[in-house]
Amino acid sequence: MLKVGVIGCGHWGPNLIRNFTQLRRSDVVLVADLDEARLKHMKGLYPTIETTKDYRDIIADPEIDIVTIATPVHTHYKLASEALFAQKHVFVEKPITASAKEAKALIVLSEKHQRKLMVGHTFVYTTAVRKMKEIIDSGELGKVYYINSQRLNLGLFQQDINVLWDLAPHDISIVLYLLDQEPQTVSAVGASHINPSVEDVAVLTMKFSDSLLAFIQTSWLDPDKIRKMTVVGSKKMMVYDDVQPTEKIRIYDKGVEGPKLYDTYTEFHYSYKYGDIIIPKIEGTEPLRTELNHFIDCILSNKEPVSNGRSGLYVVKILEAAQKSLDKGNNQVPIAEDHGL
Amino acid sequence: MLKVGVIGCGHWGPNLIRNFTQLRRSDVVLVADLDEARLKHMKGLYPTIETTKDYRDIIADPEIDIVTIATPVHTHYKLASEALFAQKHVFVEKPITASAKEAKALIVLSEKHQRKLMVGHTFVYTTAVRKMKEIIDSGELGKVYYINSQRLNLGLFQQDINVLWDLAPHDISIVLYLLDQEPQTVSAVGASHINPSVEDVAVLTMKFSDSLLAFIQTSWLDPDKIRKMTVVGSKKMMVYDDVQPTEKIRIYDKGVEGPKLYDTYTEFHYSYKYGDIIIPKIEGTEPLRTELNHFIDCILSNKEPVSNGRSGLYVVKILEAAQKSLDKGNNQVPIAEDHGL
Amino acid sequence: MLKVGVIGCGHWGPNLIRNFTQLRRSDVVLVADLDEARLKHMKGLYPTIETTKDYRDIIADPEIDIVTIATPVHTHYKLASEALFAQKHVFVEKPITASAKEAKALIVLSEKHQRKLMVGHTFVYTTAVRKMKEIIDSGELGKVYYINSQRLNLGLFQQDINVLWDLAPHDISIVLYLLDQEPQTVSAVGASHINPSVEDVAVLTMKFSDSLLAFIQTSWLDPDKIRKMTVVGSKKMMVYDDVQPTEKIRIYDKGVEGPKLYDTYTEFHYSYKYGDIIIPKIEGTEPLRTELNHFIDCILSNKEPVSNGRSGLYVVKILEAAQKSLDKGNNQVPIAEDHGL
Amino acid sequence: MLKVGVIGCGHWGPNLIRNFTQLRRSDVVLVADLDEARLKHMKGLYPTIETTKDYRDIIADPEIDIVTIATPVHTHYKLASEALFAQKHVFVEKPITASAKEAKALIVLSEKHQRKLMVGHTFVYTTAVRKMKEIIDSGELGKVYYINSQRLNLGLFQQDINVLWDLAPHDISIVLYLLDQEPQTVSAVGASHINPSVEDVAVLTMKFSDSLLAFIQTSWLDPDKIRKMTVVGSKKMMVYDDVQPTEKIRIYDKGVEGPKLYDTYTEFHYSYKYGDIIIPKIEGTEPLRTELNHFIDCILSNKEPVSNGRSGLYVVKILEAAQKSLDKGNNQVPIAEDHGL
Repeated sequence: MLKVGVIGCGHWGPNLIRNFTQLRRSDVVLVADLDEARLKHMKGLYPTIETTKDYRDIIADPEIDIVTIATPVHTHYKLASEALFAQKHVFVEKPITASAKEAKALIVLSEKHQRKLMVGHTFVYTTAVRKMKEIIDSGELGKVYYINSQRLNLGLFQQDINVLWDLAPHDISIVLYLLDQEPQTVSAVGASHINPSVEDVAVLTMKFSDSLLAFIQTSWLDPDKIRKMTVVGSKKMMVYDDVQPTEKIRIYDKGVEGPKLYDTYTEFHYSYKYGDIIIPKIEGTEPLRTELNHFIDCILSNKEPVSNGRSGLYVVKILEAAQKSLDKGNNQVPIAEDHGL
Repeated sequence: MLKVGVIGCGHWGPNLIRNFTQLRRSDVVLVADLDEARLKHMKGLYPTIETTKDYRDIIADPEIDIVTIATPVHTHYKLASEALFAQKHVFVEKPITASAKEAKALIVLSEKHQRKLMVGHTFVYTTAVRKMKEIIDSGELGKVYYINSQRLNLGLFQQDINVLWDLAPHDISIVLYLLDQEPQTVSAVGASHINPSVEDVAVLTMKFSDSLLAFIQTSWLDPDKIRKMTVVGSKKMMVYDDVQPTEKIRIYDKGVEGPKLYDTYTEFHYSYKYGDIIIPKIEGTEPLRTELNHFIDCILSNKEPVSNGRSGLYVVKILEAAQKSLDKGNNQVPIAEDHGL
Repeated sequence: MLKVGVIGCGHWGPNLIRNFTQLRRSDVVLVADLDEARLKHMKGLYPTIETTKDYRDIIADPEIDIVTIATPVHTHYKLASEALFAQKHVFVEKPITASAKEAKALIVLSEKHQRKLMVGHTFVYTTAVRKMKEIIDSGELGKVYYINSQRLNLGLFQQDINVLWDLAPHDISIVLYLLDQEPQTVSAVGASHINPSVEDVAVLTMKFSDSLLAFIQTSWLDPDKIRKMTVVGSKKMMVYDDVQPTEKIRIYDKGVEGPKLYDTYTEFHYSYKYGDIIIPKIEGTEPLRTELNHFIDCILSNKEPVSNGRSGLYVVKILEAAQKSLDKGNNQVPIAEDHGL
Repeated sequence: MLKVGVIGCGHWGPNLIRNFTQLRRSDVVLVADLDEARLKHMKGLYPTIETTKDYRDIIADPEIDIVTIATPVHTHYKLASEALFAQKHVFVEKPITASAKEAKALIVLSEKHQRKLMVGHTFVYTTAVRKMKEIIDSGELGKVYYINSQRLNLGLFQQDINVLWDLAPHDISIVLYLLDQEPQTVSAVGASHINPSVEDVAVLTMKFSDSLLAFIQTSWLDPDKIRKMTVVGSKKMMVYDDVQPTEKIRIYDKGVEGPKLYDTYTEFHYSYKYGDIIIPKIEGTEPLRTELNHFIDCILSNKEPVSNGRSGLYVVKILEAAQKSLDKGNNQVPIAEDHGL
């Protein structure tokens, strides 16, 4: 039985506590938060857990195997590095850290101490995203031309990070998972309206090799709740609508093809294809449960998590580049390969 | 009775012929096209019109009052300037010309010859866009924060222009009409997949003063037909979905407000508002009929059209800037004020 | 070239005129209506047709091959029988007549004079209904359990007939076409609200052999326009939504099965199946054109139309039975087999 | 603190346990079920409750104030009458009993013992239904013409009762609550497909005075989950779609009116009205919590519950009449007034 310590039980922490409690192979023993009322509330729901206002009690507890971190982003590095140093396996919420430099340091630490480091890219563990990955990898869509993602709704949860750092990690981690490659450049445009120093609407564009693009549109100020991703391929197209309760994915047997050879002086003929639409059945399981079970598997069998430190780093590199682009005229910012790692 | 000559009866021309024929104050007398089959087809539908393969027959006909131009964009300037020179009123399809320089020249010509010059920004004449303008101008939405527009579907109609020049004129003309101001900078990102030299997916961003943004997303490669514009204001939000047959506009009594005064060291409190949604009744009239009637009114009463040469110019300036941004790294390109005009 | 005379150019007649005019094998020569303004309007649209206020001019014209009848229902029998008597082929709008007796008389007349008699059950000629028929006949749905149809919207077009006689002929003709059998009994419930003697909302239920049911719900007073038919089978289920512009049919790989053998004292176990949904591509063609082309085919090749007099009779028999049920306590009314015919 | 004993913890019982546990004024002390595994599971979730296989332990416990019954319908009467006899307040799931006779007996018992008897017509406690009631009572819709309700989905939960007894109590209780009157007659049509003796699809029609109708369509065999009720009034119309997560009610400013006075010999003119649609904001609260809080209020303040024994009786009378109609030819069955009560 793996013993879990949870740092932070505000917005997301309770979901971690509930799942680690319900899983057969793990148990939550200690929860830390600065807010005593939250701790009391958690103790009420789970009478067997202990609570503390000092996260260092978790780090110092020799019985604890796993430390989970669901605190503001700027604290992730400090908490995760102390936990790794104390030989704990670490599960940290997305984004993994506030900078690529910090993420790299955590990766190095986790390798040195031979402890698992996993980041909470939860969507990568949903049945819908898994299904999309399967479809893309099967070649059914043909060559992927572009991905267009929207994550919009009314809601401001964050004060220390902007809408890109808050919402785009979901889309970026899904896109990287689906395409299995890093972008070459990133650009971003956005603006702040409610809090003058924090962007509340932004579009991020990733350019991959060979004209492959991914657009990610995020907003905290949209009247509708929209969670939609379109994957356009040379043979078929696919739409993932996460707001739909059951019909999350649609595969369109539609496409456009240019002529194989053509002469610019003669008429250019496109061929269009219109066919059936398929809505594959997708099981509805709680992705966080799948995710934490996977983490436990990785610890017990010494495997590398799908959303490991490197995945976390890739997302943060893109967010950093996007921030640079936002700050200086929206121009493309290159993504460096990490030869050092 | 105003006599109309129509140059080009391919994709859009037949709609112009039908409407000018049905209006009481105008009549189509001569239609020009390079394609004899199209001319024959038109003659079949409207036995009283004459046809010609040489557009100069229209320019030269002293009986003709109005010349309408529905030909490829790169021919607009030549045809329109010859018509204005021949003292005709000119109606030209969007975008007005292939460059801002050409558009300016047409404006100067139309003023010199005291003839009306109007561009086919048809959406500005729809009851839905008129309703949106009315709502924004009434102050009901509060201060406009941003506009987000999507114009996506499967379809490639153009060979000489990319998806931005093909589809974005609709959105740009709507946005300029709604906001009644020009953007300060424009940036754009896109890529070509079917025809290597022609972008088939692109996002254009316009920045106005005071953090006001407008995003326009266009694609010829999307499986769904999407024509949607969201206007986010400080008090309310509005969504215009042109694909809906009757419920085109929704007004959401929703919003977020930051505290009037706040101290960054203390907790920052937002206030959210959730209220009713209203779907106003909108009459369904054919916008092209409204548009052409307006053109005739302007000619007969010597008024300036809503979508006059300047409107056409503003759209083309933005398209030119977007093209520049597309071509060099997606950076912001400033929109110059036209002191010369 | 078949010469067509059209009696009635009010609501539906103009569609008949347009289609018979555009088809290569037919031409409209004479149109009759009591309303001179309508005749003038038609003459304006189709300058080559002649018009008359006296339908007997059509009946008496020896050049005319086909008489189409789009007049109030109570006149159908008189007009159609005179036309058949004058050796014309007859196309009459639905419902074929105001009573089964009249319908039988027309069938007898058409057989005696060896002329084609066809009724305008247009939906039977749509690509969507044809696709449904193909799917049911293939056995893909298994045994059909029930059909549920809704035809609702805001609109009162008829004064001489109630909502069942107005709207249900569409659904009844589709159901009979899909199932290829007559019901054994019919019951109906409804009420009048606007015009005291004319039902404006009603539900009709047809019972076939072996527990097979069809429900048809009609209303002139519904805020939404709904045209939806669900076909539930033992293996799969199918929904036809005619309001959808392109995605008209969905096939659900869903079902419930009871155990083959079971003991009422033990637990009764059902098995549920949930699978993919398929939206087959359906071509969008104008069904009236298909329908009239089929009528011409039947005349030229001496074939029996799909929606022949007997189809018309079956629908009217059901409407008569439904009316009886409406009038006396909603009880089941048996449908007699027509041994006489 | 009111002490609660719960009989039955299968499908719905756990919701009762959870809510009574979380409410401040009540506590669950004892849970009875025949299935030991279920009892163990409940004990795991709520360690402080006691469990028993013999419901008589609950009846006999002098500390228990409230007995809740969530067992198969045919057991309701026996359990509820024993509990009332033992001076308990009784909350019983819908339908209240398997016959009107039983329901009347419970009402008499509850009055004799001065104990509260409440039936779980949960929808009557939803914010959406409350909002509809408010709108109808305000006269905004004008005179109500008819109500059309659909409750369809794939799912067979019951073996001892058919689809009408299972699903229609929801719709009947909503309709009676909205209209505040009993129907005069009831008719029903349906059929069995999976289990030969249990109807799995059925339509029930209630006729009230003055042409007011209510249609209720139920199915366990529909591919889509549909929970939709349309209320058509003389001035406005309203649609309640319970499947929508937030936009549950739409008010349509639409209508049709006949002329005040008319002469059947002259043309009959209807006037149509098309106006805005309003989607009122509705708070999302758990209706079961509202319901149980209301029950506690009624006990503590000696008030009559909204869904009291009489409400339960009215629903069962309608179900009985519907069953009679189903069994013999679908004819109207009158609803007797209960002078005896």
